[in-house]
Amino acid sequence: MYNNYVMKRKISIIGSTGSIGTQTLEVIEKLQDKFEIIALAGGSNVDLLNKQINKFKPKYVCLGSKNTNLNPCGAKVLFGDEGLEEICSNKQNDIVVIAVSGKIGLKPTLKAIENGIDIALANKETLVMAGDIVMKRAKEAGVKILPVDSEHSAIFQCIHGENEKVDRLIITASGGPFLHKSIEEIKNATVEQALAHPRWNMGKKITVDSATLMNKGLEVIEAHHLFDIDYDRINVVIHPQSYVHSAIEYKDGSILAQIGVPSMHLPIQYAICYPERPEGIKSRSFSFADAQKFEFLKPDFDKFPCPALAYEAGKTGGSATICMNAANEEAVYAFLDGKIALYDIYTTVEKIYRKHQVIKKLDIDEIFALDKEIREKTKELFN
Amino acid sequence: MYNNYVMKRKISIIGSTGSIGTQTLEVIEKLQDKFEIIALAGGSNVDLLNKQINKFKPKYVCLGSKNTNLNPCGAKVLFGDEGLEEICSNKQNDIVVIAVSGKIGLKPTLKAIENGIDIALANKETLVMAGDIVMKRAKEAGVKILPVDSEHSAIFQCIHGENEKVDRLIITASGGPFLHKSIEEIKNATVEQALAHPRWNMGKKITVDSATLMNKGLEVIEAHHLFDIDYDRINVVIHPQSYVHSAIEYKDGSILAQIGVPSMHLPIQYAICYPERPEGIKSRSFSFADAQKFEFLKPDFDKFPCPALAYEAGKTGGSATICMNAANEEAVYAFLDGKIALYDIYTTVEKIYRKHQVIKKLDIDEIFALDKEIREKTKELFN
Repeated sequence: MYNNYVMKRKISIIGSTGSIGTQTLEVIEKLQDKFEIIALAGGSNVDLLNKQINKFKPKYVCLGSKNTNLNPCGAKVLFGDEGLEEICSNKQNDIVVIAVSGKIGLKPTLKAIENGIDIALANKETLVMAGDIVMKRAKEAGVKILPVDSEHSAIFQCIHGENEKVDRLIITASGGPFLHKSIEEIKNATVEQALAHPRWNMGKKITVDSATLMNKGLEVIEAHHLFDIDYDRINVVIHPQSYVHSAIEYKDGSILAQIGVPSMHLPIQYAICYPERPEGIKSRSFSFADAQKFEFLKPDFDKFPCPALAYEAGKTGGSATICMNAANEEAVYAFLDGKIALYDIYTTVEKIYRKHQVIKKLDIDEIFALDKEIREKTKELFN
Repeated sequence: MYNNYVMKRKISIIGSTGSIGTQTLEVIEKLQDKFEIIALAGGSNVDLLNKQINKFKPKYVCLGSKNTNLNPCGAKVLFGDEGLEEICSNKQNDIVVIAVSGKIGLKPTLKAIENGIDIALANKETLVMAGDIVMKRAKEAGVKILPVDSEHSAIFQCIHGENEKVDRLIITASGGPFLHKSIEEIKNATVEQALAHPRWNMGKKITVDSATLMNKGLEVIEAHHLFDIDYDRINVVIHPQSYVHSAIEYKDGSILAQIGVPSMHLPIQYAICYPERPEGIKSRSFSFADAQKFEFLKPDFDKFPCPALAYEAGKTGGSATICMNAANEEAVYAFLDGKIALYDIYTTVEKIYRKHQVIKKLDIDEIFALDKEIREKTKELFN
């Protein structure tokens, strides 16, 4: 049945020691007969990378910088950004998983596109910073950008490639830990409270973004690029149970939604196996009757103003989303460092964003330069 | 965009004056540039048929029997079962809508298949009585059977033709008017109570079937035939709000559900426009936030034993579903006539069913003969 797998699919993972990377390897372990690992690239967690190398026997490994504890087991050793780009230029790959977080994911993505390698994309910045360039180049190269984020995977699964029949996207949001809190409680929120996400266990930066709902704003921008759909036709709805991972409405009014237990294994597996759906790592069936209840409510953009700013930046285009994203990331770090209150993430981003003169068109070097400039300006606010 | 409609789609409606028939014409009125009506066939409502003829100018009209009040406006006039079969043999048709209820729908369906005409099927008996024969012949003839029932349309929309990737179907049920009633209250239910369906406004027979949940049993049998899936992999879940019209689970555990306001316009439009999705009769968007809450619960087969019997009959195959369906229909009429209590619909069907010697393979004439025999045996119980 899985004729596509008579030949093993050759895969590399950029960011193999992170949350998405380790879960990708769990999926691949369940589907050993379907995948061959070309390269694993970790950051600084050498112990975990050594274990992964020993288990999966990649041909190449890449590490942030030289480390004498690395045990490559015969694999060729690469380092840093250049190493990542070398992996993504290796045409042996059928697909690369971009599972690093931050702007480090952008250049390897562009290299993979240049070399005609499909991409399972779990890196927000790639589309938030350079969505126009990335999607244009991918289209020209005939490269598939397969979303790993649960919301975008849900939309991708519902659309079935029939983009032209879609009227709008409905992105669901759990609402985060402050959904039912007052604006005063949000203003006084501690780091600990912000990191206590009710549904998903993720990294600190994204968990804070979930608490401010900026995460949804970034997802709206990503969805705009991935599915080539106007911002006015992307809605956000709060769904505290996180069973409905997102939905689409067709032009005739019919809605398709993708549903399941909150788990990253499924969207990862779908992205790397697409268009096949082997049983793989499926652990249990979702039961509607056991779930009992799905609730939905409108997002409160007064209490959570970040997504409204993201919509504005998205519609403005050009450098606006780059500015907003860089200012937000630095503000989140300042919050995590105890320098500012949770709500001041928004006021910080807004202050930087309002002063920014939007540039309509930027090349990749200009994008990185602007990102750096905005980060410095933002950090100055906390000194 | 709708290249398929550069030529108008030629359509006939068998049962144009019924609930589905009139709603089909409402859809076609909104999509006048996409459809040309070949024939309209009504039963005995001549006044309504005259209005439809005047408005839609079909080339053929068909009536149950001769009636001097018919005003055909130049259309060729046909009568009875032969008339329906003549319409379904007319190769001018691209698609026929089988919108009559009862066994009268079966022979026109077979004629359409014989003549390579696609079918929008809104007639339960076609698949419950002769699912094996109908689906086999349709497959051989390359004829599409496009479901009009909201549950089967939902499943069809979710599957996107990828049947081999599907693990199970999840058919939703509103639960009917007696969902939260005790078994004693159900036993003493009046006809009026049984006809007060909370979500859907339908004919009397199907509304009583919804009250006993036999309707879900029949839908499970239809789904088995339409999607070629084992009974063990078809589940029923109660969903009182009727927003989720049904769902599928893929082998990897991902669930897709089709969602919307309870309305027959959309599934009718999808069936006759397939695979296109013009805006058409869409009146308003479904809003998750306005809906607020979806509830789900397990069906109680002790309180509502009919679906369990339908599963048993479906798994048994052959004449079992024909027997169950015929006994049920006569028992429903006996209930509507005040001859038996609501719960005795089940006990009646069970009594007839348990005495029935299953015949594994029947041709169409044998199916009709058995149907007649079972109805007579059932009616004898009420004398």
